[in-house]
Amino acid sequence: MTVSDEERIARATINLVTEPGDVRCLGLTRELGGVRFLEVLKEQPDLRSEFVAAAGRLASAQPERVLEEAARRRIRFVVPGDDEWPAPLDDLSGAGMLHARGDVPVGLWVRGPLRIDRLDPAVAVVGSRSSTSYGDQVAGDMAAVLGAAGRTVVSGAAHGVDYAAHRGAVTADGRTVAVLACGVDRAYPLAHQQMLDHLGEHHAVVSEAPPGSAPLRIRFLARNRLIAALTQGTVVVEAAVRSGALNTASWADRLHRTVMGVPGSVISAASEGVHELIRAGGASLVTCGDDVLELLGASGEHLLDVRRAPEGPRDRLSIRARQVLDAVPVSSPAAAASIARVAGLGIEEVELLLDGLAVDGHVERLPSGWRLGEEVRSTIAQ
Amino acid sequence: MTVSDEERIARATINLVTEPGDVRCLGLTRELGGVRFLEVLKEQPDLRSEFVAAAGRLASAQPERVLEEAARRRIRFVVPGDDEWPAPLDDLSGAGMLHARGDVPVGLWVRGPLRIDRLDPAVAVVGSRSSTSYGDQVAGDMAAVLGAAGRTVVSGAAHGVDYAAHRGAVTADGRTVAVLACGVDRAYPLAHQQMLDHLGEHHAVVSEAPPGSAPLRIRFLARNRLIAALTQGTVVVEAAVRSGALNTASWADRLHRTVMGVPGSVISAASEGVHELIRAGGASLVTCGDDVLELLGASGEHLLDVRRAPEGPRDRLSIRARQVLDAVPVSSPAAAASIARVAGLGIEEVELLLDGLAVDGHVERLPSGWRLGEEVRSTIAQ
Repeated sequence: MTVSDEERIARATINLVTEPGDVRCLGLTRELGGVRFLEVLKEQPDLRSEFVAAAGRLASAQPERVLEEAARRRIRFVVPGDDEWPAPLDDLSGAGMLHARGDVPVGLWVRGPLRIDRLDPAVAVVGSRSSTSYGDQVAGDMAAVLGAAGRTVVSGAAHGVDYAAHRGAVTADGRTVAVLACGVDRAYPLAHQQMLDHLGEHHAVVSEAPPGSAPLRIRFLARNRLIAALTQGTVVVEAAVRSGALNTASWADRLHRTVMGVPGSVISAASEGVHELIRAGGASLVTCGDDVLELLGASGEHLLDVRRAPEGPRDRLSIRARQVLDAVPVSSPAAAASIARVAGLGIEEVELLLDGLAVDGHVERLPSGWRLGEEVRSTIAQ
Repeated sequence: MTVSDEERIARATINLVTEPGDVRCLGLTRELGGVRFLEVLKEQPDLRSEFVAAAGRLASAQPERVLEEAARRRIRFVVPGDDEWPAPLDDLSGAGMLHARGDVPVGLWVRGPLRIDRLDPAVAVVGSRSSTSYGDQVAGDMAAVLGAAGRTVVSGAAHGVDYAAHRGAVTADGRTVAVLACGVDRAYPLAHQQMLDHLGEHHAVVSEAPPGSAPLRIRFLARNRLIAALTQGTVVVEAAVRSGALNTASWADRLHRTVMGVPGSVISAASEGVHELIRAGGASLVTCGDDVLELLGASGEHLLDVRRAPEGPRDRLSIRARQVLDAVPVSSPAAAASIARVAGLGIEEVELLLDGLAVDGHVERLPSGWRLGEEVRSTIAQ
C-alpha cells in the first residue's frame, strides 16, 4: 500500500464534492494528484471559478467522517496506487474529453469480499431494462456459462438483462460484480435490495458515487464507462435503439474492448439496437456463452469448432451407394432401370445397392418402384 | 436469335442425356459448343467411356419430340446465344470444378411470360423448409418490400421460407421466379401446384432439368447454383446448420454476389445456420427489405439513414435546463437546494427551471422535494 492517508483523504474529498465522471476534475486529479488538485481548488480563485460546484461543496465536505462511517459498514474506498486498484481502469486516462463523462475515477467505493483488482478475466453482460423473457433467458444462460468458466460477470443491477446476468452467474457459482450509479449502500431499483445484499455479502458491489448517493442520469452515464473499462468485452443482450446498454458498448469500443451483440427477432424492438450495432460492424454476433469465450479467449484457448451438422446417415455410405441414392426420386417411385440410367451404373449393381440402402431405411420399395425413405426425404436440400 | 436449330437440338439432347450441373459435360459443351460435344460423345469411344451414363441414353433421346411437346405446353428451352439468355448465368463458367455440381447450364426450361433475361435487379430469398411462423412472416414481408421496389424475387418454391417469399412478392404485385429441381411441368411439393400454376401463368418457372423430371438430390444441389447466379444477392431467412439454403448462400459467395442473413432467436434451431454464417463473416445482417435494398442499391440509391432514436423530450431543452434535469434524482425526491448543488447552479435559477420542467412533465414535485417525471424515468439509461 503506497497511498498516503493524506492522498486518500484528498481523493475522498474530491469524490464527495464532484460528480462521477467529471472529466476536468478527474483529469486534473490524475495529473496533479489528489492533494495538489485540492490545494489548487482551495487556493486559486481564478481556477476555482471553473469548478463552482465543487468549490461550493468543499466547506461542508467531511471526508474523514465519511470514510470512517463507510469502513464501519464494510465499505472501502479503493484509489489508484492501492493493491486493489484495477489496472484496466487506467485505460480511461484522458478518455471522455469529447463526451459528457469520462476519465479515471479518483476512487471507487466497494462493498463485498471480491477484490476488484482480481476480476480479470471479466465480461460485461448488459442490456435492456425492458427486456423480453427471451432476453432474460439468454442473458441468464450466457452468464451461467461465463461464470462456470471462471469469468467474472459485470453488470449494472438494473431490471431486465442486468438482473438476469447477475442471477445467472450466481446460480452457476460464478463471480459477479454490480456497478451502480447510486451509492453501494443503496438499492436501485429497490426491488433488487435482496440481490444487492447477496452480492455485497459474497461478491462485490462497486460505485464511483459516495455512499448515500442517489441515482442521477449523469451517474448512469459515468457508471457505464466503468462497466466497459473493468471488463475484456461487453455483450449487449437486448437493447432498443435508445438504450444505455449501447452507451456501455460504445465505451467498450472506445477502450478497445471486444463488443458483442446477441441477435433476436427482427420484429422485436428490444433487439433493434443490437441488430443496428452488428449491421454497422460495431459488434460481433454471439449466440451463447461459448461464442463469447471464443472471442475473448487467449489464442488457442476456447477455439470453437465450426459448427457442422451432425454426420448424416448419407455420410457413412460408399461412393457407389451415394451415387445410387442421389438418383432415387424423392417422392414418386422409379424403376431400378431408370435409377441405373440416372446414376450411370449397371442395373445389377444398382439393384444390389438398392436392397442394401433399403435395409437402413435410405430408400423404400413401393409396388411401382423405389423412392427415398421417409427420413432421408426430410433432409433433402431445402 | 443467333442460335441454329442444330445447336439448339444438340443442346436439348445433351440436356436430356445428362444430369443438371454435370461439370464435365457442361464444361465441354461450353467450350466446344453443343453440336461438337455431341459428335465427340458419339464418335470417340475413348472419351465416351468417361460419360457412360450420357452415352448410354443417347440412343433413346428424342430431342425434337421433347422440344415440340414442350412448346405445345408453352414451355421454352432457352440456350446461350438466345436473346432471352440471362447473362449473369455465364458467371458460372468453370465454377464447380471442385464441387458436386456446377458450370453454365446447356439451357434452361422456362414456363411463364416473364423473360428471364430481364429479371435484373433480382434478389434470392431462400431458407428453411421447416421454417417457423417468424421466418415465414419475415420472408413474406421482405419479399413484398423487394417486389414493390421493382426487384424480382427468386426462390425455390419449397415449403416454408421459399413459399412465403413467392407469396409475399405476388401480394405486392412484384415479380417472382421459381427455380425448380424437377421439371417445370411438375409440382414439387405437390401442395404448391396452385402457386406454381399461378407463377407459370403470370411470372416464370425455371428449371435446368427437362420437363417431366423428378426432384432428385443432385438436382436440388444443381438448382441452388442457378438461384444464386440469377440474382444480385441471396438473403437467407432461416436455415438450420444443415440446410440447402446455406448451399445457395455459398454459391452466391463463390459468384461474388451479396450474401445476407436474417437473425432470429438464438434458441431457435431454424436460425442457427444463419447466425453461424453472419458470425463467420459470410453474410451481412439484414432485418428488413430496406436493409436489402440498401446493400444491393447502386451507390447513392437506397441509402438508409442510420437508425437514430426518435428525438426525446430532453433533446428540446436548453443546456441549463438539461443541467438541472441531470441533477434531479430518479425516484427519491431531493430539495431544490440539493439539486442546485449537484448541478453547480444558483438556487433561484434552479427553482425557476424546475418549475418550467414540471410543466412538461420532466420532473414532478412531491411534498419532500423534486424527482424525475414518470416518462423521463422510463428513458433513463439502462
